[in-house]
Amino acid sequence: MWGGRFAGGPDAIMEAINASIGFDKRLAPQDIEGSRAHAAMLAAVGILSDKDADAIREGLLTILSEIEAGEFTFSAALEDIHMNVEARLTELIGEPAKRLHTARSRNDQVATDFRLWVRAQCDEAEGLLEELLRALLAQAEAGADWVMPGFTHLQTAQPVTWGHHMMAYVEMVSRDLSRLRDARDRMNESPLGAAALAGTSFPIDRHATAEALGFDRPSANSLDAVSDRDFALEFLSVATISAMHLSRLAEELVIWSSAQFRFVTLSDRWSTGSSIMPQKRNPDAAELLRAKVGRIFGANVALLTVMKGLPLAYSKDMQEDKEQVFDAADNWLLSLRAMTGMVSDMSANREALRAAAASGFSTATDLADWLVRRLELPFREAHHVTGSLVAKAEAKGCDLPDLTLQEMQEVHAGITEEVFGVLTVEASVASRESYGGTAPAQVRAQIARWREVLG
Amino acid sequence: MWGGRFAGGPDAIMEAINASIGFDKRLAPQDIEGSRAHAAMLAAVGILSDKDADAIREGLLTILSEIEAGEFTFSAALEDIHMNVEARLTELIGEPAKRLHTARSRNDQVATDFRLWVRAQCDEAEGLLEELLRALLAQAEAGADWVMPGFTHLQTAQPVTWGHHMMAYVEMVSRDLSRLRDARDRMNESPLGAAALAGTSFPIDRHATAEALGFDRPSANSLDAVSDRDFALEFLSVATISAMHLSRLAEELVIWSSAQFRFVTLSDRWSTGSSIMPQKRNPDAAELLRAKVGRIFGANVALLTVMKGLPLAYSKDMQEDKEQVFDAADNWLLSLRAMTGMVSDMSANREALRAAAASGFSTATDLADWLVRRLELPFREAHHVTGSLVAKAEAKGCDLPDLTLQEMQEVHAGITEEVFGVLTVEASVASRESYGGTAPAQVRAQIARWREVLG
Amino acid sequence: MWGGRFAGGPDAIMEAINASIGFDKRLAPQDIEGSRAHAAMLAAVGILSDKDADAIREGLLTILSEIEAGEFTFSAALEDIHMNVEARLTELIGEPAKRLHTARSRNDQVATDFRLWVRAQCDEAEGLLEELLRALLAQAEAGADWVMPGFTHLQTAQPVTWGHHMMAYVEMVSRDLSRLRDARDRMNESPLGAAALAGTSFPIDRHATAEALGFDRPSANSLDAVSDRDFALEFLSVATISAMHLSRLAEELVIWSSAQFRFVTLSDRWSTGSSIMPQKRNPDAAELLRAKVGRIFGANVALLTVMKGLPLAYSKDMQEDKEQVFDAADNWLLSLRAMTGMVSDMSANREALRAAAASGFSTATDLADWLVRRLELPFREAHHVTGSLVAKAEAKGCDLPDLTLQEMQEVHAGITEEVFGVLTVEASVASRESYGGTAPAQVRAQIARWREVLG
Amino acid sequence: MWGGRFAGGPDAIMEAINASIGFDKRLAPQDIEGSRAHAAMLAAVGILSDKDADAIREGLLTILSEIEAGEFTFSAALEDIHMNVEARLTELIGEPAKRLHTARSRNDQVATDFRLWVRAQCDEAEGLLEELLRALLAQAEAGADWVMPGFTHLQTAQPVTWGHHMMAYVEMVSRDLSRLRDARDRMNESPLGAAALAGTSFPIDRHATAEALGFDRPSANSLDAVSDRDFALEFLSVATISAMHLSRLAEELVIWSSAQFRFVTLSDRWSTGSSIMPQKRNPDAAELLRAKVGRIFGANVALLTVMKGLPLAYSKDMQEDKEQVFDAADNWLLSLRAMTGMVSDMSANREALRAAAASGFSTATDLADWLVRRLELPFREAHHVTGSLVAKAEAKGCDLPDLTLQEMQEVHAGITEEVFGVLTVEASVASRESYGGTAPAQVRAQIARWREVLG
Repeated sequence: MWGGRFAGGPDAIMEAINASIGFDKRLAPQDIEGSRAHAAMLAAVGILSDKDADAIREGLLTILSEIEAGEFTFSAALEDIHMNVEARLTELIGEPAKRLHTARSRNDQVATDFRLWVRAQCDEAEGLLEELLRALLAQAEAGADWVMPGFTHLQTAQPVTWGHHMMAYVEMVSRDLSRLRDARDRMNESPLGAAALAGTSFPIDRHATAEALGFDRPSANSLDAVSDRDFALEFLSVATISAMHLSRLAEELVIWSSAQFRFVTLSDRWSTGSSIMPQKRNPDAAELLRAKVGRIFGANVALLTVMKGLPLAYSKDMQEDKEQVFDAADNWLLSLRAMTGMVSDMSANREALRAAAASGFSTATDLADWLVRRLELPFREAHHVTGSLVAKAEAKGCDLPDLTLQEMQEVHAGITEEVFGVLTVEASVASRESYGGTAPAQVRAQIARWREVLG
Repeated sequence: MWGGRFAGGPDAIMEAINASIGFDKRLAPQDIEGSRAHAAMLAAVGILSDKDADAIREGLLTILSEIEAGEFTFSAALEDIHMNVEARLTELIGEPAKRLHTARSRNDQVATDFRLWVRAQCDEAEGLLEELLRALLAQAEAGADWVMPGFTHLQTAQPVTWGHHMMAYVEMVSRDLSRLRDARDRMNESPLGAAALAGTSFPIDRHATAEALGFDRPSANSLDAVSDRDFALEFLSVATISAMHLSRLAEELVIWSSAQFRFVTLSDRWSTGSSIMPQKRNPDAAELLRAKVGRIFGANVALLTVMKGLPLAYSKDMQEDKEQVFDAADNWLLSLRAMTGMVSDMSANREALRAAAASGFSTATDLADWLVRRLELPFREAHHVTGSLVAKAEAKGCDLPDLTLQEMQEVHAGITEEVFGVLTVEASVASRESYGGTAPAQVRAQIARWREVLG
Repeated sequence: MWGGRFAGGPDAIMEAINASIGFDKRLAPQDIEGSRAHAAMLAAVGILSDKDADAIREGLLTILSEIEAGEFTFSAALEDIHMNVEARLTELIGEPAKRLHTARSRNDQVATDFRLWVRAQCDEAEGLLEELLRALLAQAEAGADWVMPGFTHLQTAQPVTWGHHMMAYVEMVSRDLSRLRDARDRMNESPLGAAALAGTSFPIDRHATAEALGFDRPSANSLDAVSDRDFALEFLSVATISAMHLSRLAEELVIWSSAQFRFVTLSDRWSTGSSIMPQKRNPDAAELLRAKVGRIFGANVALLTVMKGLPLAYSKDMQEDKEQVFDAADNWLLSLRAMTGMVSDMSANREALRAAAASGFSTATDLADWLVRRLELPFREAHHVTGSLVAKAEAKGCDLPDLTLQEMQEVHAGITEEVFGVLTVEASVASRESYGGTAPAQVRAQIARWREVLG
Repeated sequence: MWGGRFAGGPDAIMEAINASIGFDKRLAPQDIEGSRAHAAMLAAVGILSDKDADAIREGLLTILSEIEAGEFTFSAALEDIHMNVEARLTELIGEPAKRLHTARSRNDQVATDFRLWVRAQCDEAEGLLEELLRALLAQAEAGADWVMPGFTHLQTAQPVTWGHHMMAYVEMVSRDLSRLRDARDRMNESPLGAAALAGTSFPIDRHATAEALGFDRPSANSLDAVSDRDFALEFLSVATISAMHLSRLAEELVIWSSAQFRFVTLSDRWSTGSSIMPQKRNPDAAELLRAKVGRIFGANVALLTVMKGLPLAYSKDMQEDKEQVFDAADNWLLSLRAMTGMVSDMSANREALRAAAASGFSTATDLADWLVRRLELPFREAHHVTGSLVAKAEAKGCDLPDLTLQEMQEVHAGITEEVFGVLTVEASVASRESYGGTAPAQVRAQIARWREVLG
């Protein structure tokens, strides 16, 4: 493969550490697609005869069929997908196969294959993120006005609506989608024709191959084209942030499924049992989603560490890019699918949510705001008065609406009967009509806007 | 500060771990800017009297002056920048100060302050990335046709031009810039008015404060607005990838400055000496830049780990966001400045570059390509013939152009005198005229395009 | 400082990125201790006169006093702590100060200073880990037989005891302590005398300085001594794993403090309130501890990334080691203190724990085990029978002990009255007497063993 | 598998995300070993009849043969290795198989299997680290007195010996070995018998199973035994630090193999060629080793992130532990083998090393030290004088030994002919006789000590 300069062959350990065919065979469709575009272009500019180009095209299609049918024998001695395909092509069509590698190198070939693969993941992830948005929207719509406790520090803070909580994740997921689209746009340049690193003296047409492969343009600098993997790092960053968002919703699902919360019931389809404790229904899928961010971020760390301090152009270190991105992409896409399934299937326990919202002095802020609005207390004083009322209710073992007017007036004489109107959880959420607030009207406006966006 | 529900005060260790004023005082300008916008809006919608709003505005400006003059006393007992400013405002203007915290919470306040700060870093980084692009362009222009070895695996691969190598970094840095701009656009939403988590019952105008603070719009969901830090993670991802690019150029500068390479000389302004070895001139700045990616990525890891699995809405864990982003931003911006300085100052050793390019059989690919073009050998055969010629030259202890025609013909009879025309490094680079290739004409076209973009 | 080979001074940005005095001044005590040991040794072997050595010793003690009193002026132009101390020494004692740097270099000096500092952190952390162990033991002792739900997947699994749960953390923390001691032992070698990298031609006595500084021995290879930072990475790994353990207990405290769980009440000393919601009592300290693992691991990532691929010997990249380790050590030690405080102060709500343990079919495994033991069912069958009984109880809306004997016998005819004896949570925990099990007797044995170990 | 409480089966996506058999089948030998020990113990304490125990043992051995012969059909529907083995056992021996799962759970089962697997990796890594030490020692012995440049900042600093440089890695690798042994000791406790989390009411003998499986003791707390994975994190930390050391040597090999350095020649067995550039000999193995630290550290990050904030006891998140550790262990062990092979095969180019050492004013420190020793200049003055001499030589275009005595005396009148005796690289290295220094005598002493240790 490397010509006659080598006296000894590689050590067996060397072969084991060096060969990439064990994983890069996954790039076979991209490799063949790239070779087809390259051959067609070589023919168009006159470097290949049409006859050779035809033979190459037929041969590549045959190989693709063989691979798809599971009939292709991959060889570790041939090192990687590129040499495996080329060697088979030579078996199939002979001489013309040896002309295919004109004006290119494995360096631009793998950069092209890998970009095509990552771009395909972007396209798939885009669809999955949209499905997740739809599943969240459906939950939000169903419970736009269901009251639940809003937590900060996992302590009851203020009542919110189920729809509002679901829509918070819609916002997060939609930013993940936006980040993904930016990444896809930025990576969509064709490295093909950069050759080993310097370009080529053959009169190739890089714009033609770029167009044939669906790229927006050829990359502008051949050294950069074969040396960088920032597009893969950006993809991993996008996946990591998205997985972080999933881990947060997953954590909530785990907590909400506990016997102590009982906020949601996950379906049997997304739960498992125990080999020893017959009573268990475990939120395994949620836990696995909570965990996946570790793996995806681990891949990000791995590739970043690999790329740190590498001189230009291609170094073999960069072969470590693919397994990391494959694993992260697989797990991210699987996570998106699983989350969509879980969200679609889960049932919120409306009564449990409301009961939890109505305890824990959750309308204390409403009381304070009432003091500001009606009695014109400065907020800081209102806060203090409310704190005293909370302490009084706590001492009495009741919640705020259960205090008598007289008990309230002992703390602040100006309080009137009207205050009880703001102390119910329904009144509380209905009142939060500021833009983006938890009032059902606001939530429904959010939902409507997203429905329109998602079509 | 928290009203009468607390019997005991915090432990001293608790105060130490809890107080953020030690670092978030850095947000003072943003905090005051946000409070000014909030107060003006409260007055505009009639929640505050104009008189109170005026007093607040004046008070805030006074505090800003005090802080800028270093005359402000920060108190750890007041926990954070928000309470420090508010407490001082109360000292200065009394009663009206207590009305400022109406219809907001520290949760939306800190989300706003932090976003403003990160956005300002984006703006500064944008300028610095453009300066680095200009410095690289200047180097590329000066040496658009200087020949140097292009390496793969740090082995001589093919001759390239100095300009081409510099322009590879222009491409990388320009993608960093593009990523940064996307991140800035995405983060530019105003959390102000999200209040604690649920919005507010006060008739605030979030669009007004958003506009006053230069945000594109208010964030659409109040729970999301106070709960997420993906904008900070995206900023750190952008900085990490950029720092990775810097680490690669830095590694090259370190290697190129070695006695063995002598490709560049760094200026005294970017070098240091030794306390024990009087002869040393160390590329310390390059080494530090190579290292900074560790720190910046460490911050990314830290914040991602913090955010993993956090239930909504605000949790105190999120207080750990600021120091990481401060440190990463400081070090990234400093790195960009230092790299621009180093690149501007460095001198390429044109002779050493050319000499290195001309050794190591660097034009072997040109020979192979000639065999394909002129003798119509399939590339795979041409590669083999060339390998034999390299072996022959190596055995003879010379480089390819030093073989005689006869020696060449012993390997392949079809070789003619013409072949010597492609074996010089100048011919080699000149021939690589494919789009994005290393030919000086191509490099100059790249430079021209970037000159136009950068204005 | 570097002699006359430098024409131009450093750029201001270069100074900013290069100077370490801003953080390494923290090494002043170690630097002075190291210099004192070095000077004493130089005198002992006759390289310094006793008079010079005396002057140096006095001067160094003066400088230490100045630093401790806050009267020392650190200069960024002098770059680092070593040059700051030496420059001041020269001011104080003149000529003899210039002889101090004989037979050493800043490379071995900083390696020594930093090792001394990290070793001191190990010693402090050792004490703090022991205090945490004692706090956990005290909780375990108080509630050795308090019944609580044992969770898997945050679902009620089997009843356990509070003491058992606390002792699980004792095991984890004790392994952290064991790891720390191993790390301390391994790092306790003296780099002093390695000089720049190659050792020295002066007849120094490295064993003497090693002993004076409390090291077990001088490091055996001078190149290694100045080039590696694995001791710092090991320290960070130890701190990371410990912080991971703390994050788990912290997560439990956050969940247990929620209104839905009410398993524990944290003291006021370790809680905070809200600036807007007067009713809040937030477990801020627990949340911060949960978060700290991010920061500590971020430091680990940072230093590992820095060290990746660095050629020997010292490179300036390694200057990035200190801030990471300083920050991680500070935060780890603070976390240990805070956790000890929180654990010592917290009250378990015994009734809430027992009530939670008694719900959710927590003794289903006991029932299955009874079927195996008394009716000799294979475990897999017993598991199935129990599953049916759980389903029956769930349908009836009761827990397992509330089924009648007849209802049980409908599922399996062999069940007798005796079965009710294993269905209480007290019986359940008492029965788990296997070594390390949750039975109070086992827990008390664990406690007793640890009491003896901790003295 | 989970009894009758589940109405619906799992979703296909759920099965895909939940099943671990795709990777945990690798634990089959450990799972069977653990089950054999468990069954033997159950029989010994009278829970199983001897007849059943015999049947189980025979059945398990049959299954092991089937797996080793590749004849075992793994089923994803059976979720994991434990259920796959148990289901097959039931097919093979019927009723007794259902009694095997008495007094244990998959939680302690997987904890045991995984610990056994990691421990086996430790044992294998121990042998590989020792082999690497021997390979480095052999290189050190061969070139104990070969002079090469010692670098700091990749700038020539002082001459050192090849043996000294190799021995620096011996020290690093030996600390890796020491860390590994500590980790192995600490993890060697048996979780078996912890059951689901609480221990069991069956009268099992955990000491017996611990001994049968080669553990030092049973773990002391059943909750801890099934909940923690710190042993895996410690293993990953050890592997990470070791991989970092390998990355440094690998970087040196890459640089040393460049045309500019030519310090070493790697063997053909550890090099590769190019598909396009016939002249290339690439240090691929070294590059891959440089990269592997990314992947191994990525696994460390992944598992740490997974474990962050997990409440006790077992959560499904922890299923993500195995693939990370498998991949990291495989790559670490492969890296150790490859490094040993590369180091054993490589040839140092003695002449190139010496020539490089003799340039770049590498003996400037020797000159300064001579000025201190013979002329009694304070070191700081000697440093300054030497700096001037270096500047003079540089201006003249020669190295230090090429200055005339007169030229030297122009800078400092006290210099005598004797000084030339310290300016050769051989004199320089020979003089560095401080403990651990680069003098051949010191290096040989180091080698001798390690030879004895390694036996």
